[in-house]
Amino acid sequence: MTMRRKKISVIGGGFTGATTAFLLAQKELGDIILVDIPQMEDPTKGKALDMLEASPVLGFDANIIGTSNYEDTKDSDVVVITAGIARKPGMSRDDLVQTNQKVMKSVTSEIVKYSPTCHIIVLTNPVDAMTYTVFQESGFPKNRVIGQSGVLDTARFRTFIAQELNLSVKDISGFVLGGHGDDMVPLVRYSYAGGIPLETLIPKDRLDVIVERTRKGGGEIVQLLGNGSAYYAPAASLVEMVEAIVKDQRRVLPAIAYLEGEYGFEGIYLGVPTILGKDGIEEVIELDLKEEEKKALEKSASSVREVMKVLQ
Amino acid sequence: MTMRRKKISVIGGGFTGATTAFLLAQKELGDIILVDIPQMEDPTKGKALDMLEASPVLGFDANIIGTSNYEDTKDSDVVVITAGIARKPGMSRDDLVQTNQKVMKSVTSEIVKYSPTCHIIVLTNPVDAMTYTVFQESGFPKNRVIGQSGVLDTARFRTFIAQELNLSVKDISGFVLGGHGDDMVPLVRYSYAGGIPLETLIPKDRLDVIVERTRKGGGEIVQLLGNGSAYYAPAASLVEMVEAIVKDQRRVLPAIAYLEGEYGFEGIYLGVPTILGKDGIEEVIELDLKEEEKKALEKSASSVREVMKVLQ
Amino acid sequence: MTMRRKKISVIGGGFTGATTAFLLAQKELGDIILVDIPQMEDPTKGKALDMLEASPVLGFDANIIGTSNYEDTKDSDVVVITAGIARKPGMSRDDLVQTNQKVMKSVTSEIVKYSPTCHIIVLTNPVDAMTYTVFQESGFPKNRVIGQSGVLDTARFRTFIAQELNLSVKDISGFVLGGHGDDMVPLVRYSYAGGIPLETLIPKDRLDVIVERTRKGGGEIVQLLGNGSAYYAPAASLVEMVEAIVKDQRRVLPAIAYLEGEYGFEGIYLGVPTILGKDGIEEVIELDLKEEEKKALEKSASSVREVMKVLQ
Amino acid sequence: MTMRRKKISVIGGGFTGATTAFLLAQKELGDIILVDIPQMEDPTKGKALDMLEASPVLGFDANIIGTSNYEDTKDSDVVVITAGIARKPGMSRDDLVQTNQKVMKSVTSEIVKYSPTCHIIVLTNPVDAMTYTVFQESGFPKNRVIGQSGVLDTARFRTFIAQELNLSVKDISGFVLGGHGDDMVPLVRYSYAGGIPLETLIPKDRLDVIVERTRKGGGEIVQLLGNGSAYYAPAASLVEMVEAIVKDQRRVLPAIAYLEGEYGFEGIYLGVPTILGKDGIEEVIELDLKEEEKKALEKSASSVREVMKVLQ
Repeated sequence: MTMRRKKISVIGGGFTGATTAFLLAQKELGDIILVDIPQMEDPTKGKALDMLEASPVLGFDANIIGTSNYEDTKDSDVVVITAGIARKPGMSRDDLVQTNQKVMKSVTSEIVKYSPTCHIIVLTNPVDAMTYTVFQESGFPKNRVIGQSGVLDTARFRTFIAQELNLSVKDISGFVLGGHGDDMVPLVRYSYAGGIPLETLIPKDRLDVIVERTRKGGGEIVQLLGNGSAYYAPAASLVEMVEAIVKDQRRVLPAIAYLEGEYGFEGIYLGVPTILGKDGIEEVIELDLKEEEKKALEKSASSVREVMKVLQ
Repeated sequence: MTMRRKKISVIGGGFTGATTAFLLAQKELGDIILVDIPQMEDPTKGKALDMLEASPVLGFDANIIGTSNYEDTKDSDVVVITAGIARKPGMSRDDLVQTNQKVMKSVTSEIVKYSPTCHIIVLTNPVDAMTYTVFQESGFPKNRVIGQSGVLDTARFRTFIAQELNLSVKDISGFVLGGHGDDMVPLVRYSYAGGIPLETLIPKDRLDVIVERTRKGGGEIVQLLGNGSAYYAPAASLVEMVEAIVKDQRRVLPAIAYLEGEYGFEGIYLGVPTILGKDGIEEVIELDLKEEEKKALEKSASSVREVMKVLQ
Repeated sequence: MTMRRKKISVIGGGFTGATTAFLLAQKELGDIILVDIPQMEDPTKGKALDMLEASPVLGFDANIIGTSNYEDTKDSDVVVITAGIARKPGMSRDDLVQTNQKVMKSVTSEIVKYSPTCHIIVLTNPVDAMTYTVFQESGFPKNRVIGQSGVLDTARFRTFIAQELNLSVKDISGFVLGGHGDDMVPLVRYSYAGGIPLETLIPKDRLDVIVERTRKGGGEIVQLLGNGSAYYAPAASLVEMVEAIVKDQRRVLPAIAYLEGEYGFEGIYLGVPTILGKDGIEEVIELDLKEEEKKALEKSASSVREVMKVLQ
Repeated sequence: MTMRRKKISVIGGGFTGATTAFLLAQKELGDIILVDIPQMEDPTKGKALDMLEASPVLGFDANIIGTSNYEDTKDSDVVVITAGIARKPGMSRDDLVQTNQKVMKSVTSEIVKYSPTCHIIVLTNPVDAMTYTVFQESGFPKNRVIGQSGVLDTARFRTFIAQELNLSVKDISGFVLGGHGDDMVPLVRYSYAGGIPLETLIPKDRLDVIVERTRKGGGEIVQLLGNGSAYYAPAASLVEMVEAIVKDQRRVLPAIAYLEGEYGFEGIYLGVPTILGKDGIEEVIELDLKEEEKKALEKSASSVREVMKVLQ
């Protein structure tokens, strides 16, 4: 009957990690440990302290510390992984995969050592393969290792639809399957404004433009920023997943889940609709897909398998 | 009887400006215009779009745009100025003052042109002198030109006290007069934990350490970050001031106000307790000060006057 | 550029009116005037004061007053009407209609006198006919006189679906047309769990049971309470509509709107999907209905016309 | 590492109990069990269902059930007792005490049976004696049996001060010791507006009027309502105490605590400043009192002892 505060660790103190930590604290979801490598320990401590100093004004009670010592993450309830590098000009995809794989392995072994019963949510790209790596390395059951992509993809889709129709984002819902970005399989027929199917509200050619913009949504931000990538919406997406678990909400959210037969796939992490609650992914929801949707999902799975081949 | 959303412009799209914009949007205080110079237009648009894409997940309705065109700020209700440069190693104080003064002048003339009835809140350092510059340049009545420093200083003080006593930040209050940082005049006798004077709860030598740490609070973050300065707590502080005005809350908050006789000062912007409501600074609260407090405040005012001499 | 707080008046200080006032204040949507008849002035003042005394603890800034003097409602932005009697055993429907019609007339003339540009939202039953009465009596344009029923009906539907599927209410959406209660036309094909059509998740016979339970939702509460009727969910529904208008959210919400040709109806108030924003009902959304849905909607409209015949 | 939702039971389904349940659910502090006697089971179920039906609109995830079966309270984290009768005209104080004592005994034995490790917060009047009864009957350690009075008394005081000064309630703090109502010992010197002692802002005679109004605050509402007593502010006060415990906030809040030597009292429940966190009352804060304050507190304690004599 302990009232112990939840403890949530965020690995990677960059913009996404820091913004995630700040949102988690604002929502009083628990105490926050922001972790980065030893060389970044001081800046990470600086960000954590700056956030903490915002707490009296914003009115939240949460401890926030920055550290490079994984011992500080001991007994975390949820661990979010944002660590890893972004693809730089001239870097091959395989280099990216292998570099981030190494990061995942090293990070995971530390997480598991100190929090053997935690949930892990992975954001690092390429996220399907990285979630798989963390799953393998952790030895955790599949329900406790989850990747993020669909919440972010649908958030972007919903934003663009809300703008198109000049309506509240609160009433727009979207639905995607498959991988992140180019491999995203948007199910427009399961997307609505106030419950009304979008197909009846927006001409097909405009919808196609919006779907394509959503697919390239990460790239659009990268191009605008010039130097760096999106972090507000990715952080918000991570926080929604953490909240669903920590508050046992049984939310219906798209997540990268380990499939064992669902949708005809075996031994692969792929974006599917799930139920997120206190046990992490409590269920994968299987939908009847149309032929073209099936094909798109298979194509998305193929892309993931291609990346997985690079894993060492 | 219009329900027009409030419009809040944030000048300066750096970390503080962007974080301020994000918090204002999260609180649904109005639509947000994030403004930076033409060379930074694309990154500013990128940040604004990224924030907007977080809105469906975080559940707020607010438009957020990035721009370098002041015309987009037309009819703002409140404008927050975070623009300007930070002091770099080797830069003289006078150089800093004069550079930022130019920024304030140019920014203010644009603000005034498009929003002649708005409120302006200034964060740029040295904040007392910069607020004075904006006041002069704008031709606005004094109640509509306000500087921020005390909310941030007390936020830091409250954070350190909460840590010292291991209590909720919600129950710690603090009180400062005078300038930002080194010139801060903390009124410890007006600072409490749950209403109990801190002096009865914390030994004097520990309190002195905490006051000193508060004075150097900005520097502590700068040193930890290595490259850059605090932005979470400064942004939160700005947002609290905007909210007090936009919601006409008549909050009692420390602010940098133009004094015309209060506390014995004339024609100077200085940090004092104020009442913030729909008319901006609706009142300066005058306190009976002890002799040593008066002296400290005079010293603080002298520092401000020193900086004002550099203004051109 | 005034920051004047919004002003919202709630007519009727019973459970629903009081709960509405409390929720509006909690959300800081404006200052609240709770109005009842002179004989109930003191209890109404008592409730208002009790709510106000909760504000320091719950942390909201809103003035709340109880009164029987309509002058206090002067310049309201939105007025919510919850006044009127509930049907008692032995009372004919016609008696109910005519009694409440009188209340609407008297209340409306007072509202209009003091707030000629306000929006009015009506809850009093039979709500379609009562909204029509207020519309007639006020002389207001149709967009500023709105009835509530669909938000409440869908709220009940969503609750029952969430229980059936053991999922978060946040991910369940529902859709109804037509009148309140028995005349409700649920569009199950536009109702979802996490975007997935309910028809694919719940067997038809169970869905039928839930639809029927929703239709009788008000009666279920009446029967359980023994003495009185629902007020928490009705109040929450009113507040969502007020918020959509006051914050200009352009929400897609079901509302009782005056039809002039939409769905083939003329000169009647009926429950339809609308867009609610700063101008009240900014749009009625027309859907292609199936034959059976059309028939159900016509039946619902007939019921409304039957009641309207009783109006004097 | 379970994410099990907290469980909070509220004993007594009257206005205060129901409002408490609703506020707890709105804040997503846990699942809520609202308990009343078998004869009131249906109305209690009705209120709980009505609240639940508000959840999709207000956006909270919490199960709420009404029951008369204490088995449903099994494994509660916190139990709030609002049950008992109010003093009616012609009823002697001793009758009130003895009737409510019986209620407390019966309720407590049920609570303890099903939730042997819970925290109990008592609201029932006379609250000092009733908290003592629950403490005795439960056999719980003193930190887990707590009475409410000071949060409510200060809330009223803060409301009146905010009105007097026309300031935000957020910036007004108050401080009381001793019993509820007439026996309240307000420490005006520990009460502030924006940190500024009230004594410097409000003339003594006005302050005296406000203190007196606060003392009679419950009676003022009773008189206005005509039939019944305050429930909004009492419920909000209970919720703040529950939140402090459930979220382990270490708030500094006035509470009715069992004294064993503190302030010179032994074996009595009395209103004192406390630290509320995961272990309930984690500390009683002892203040140096002035002679007149000591006397007032002793008088307050005498009143409590008088009532305790009536306990059987």
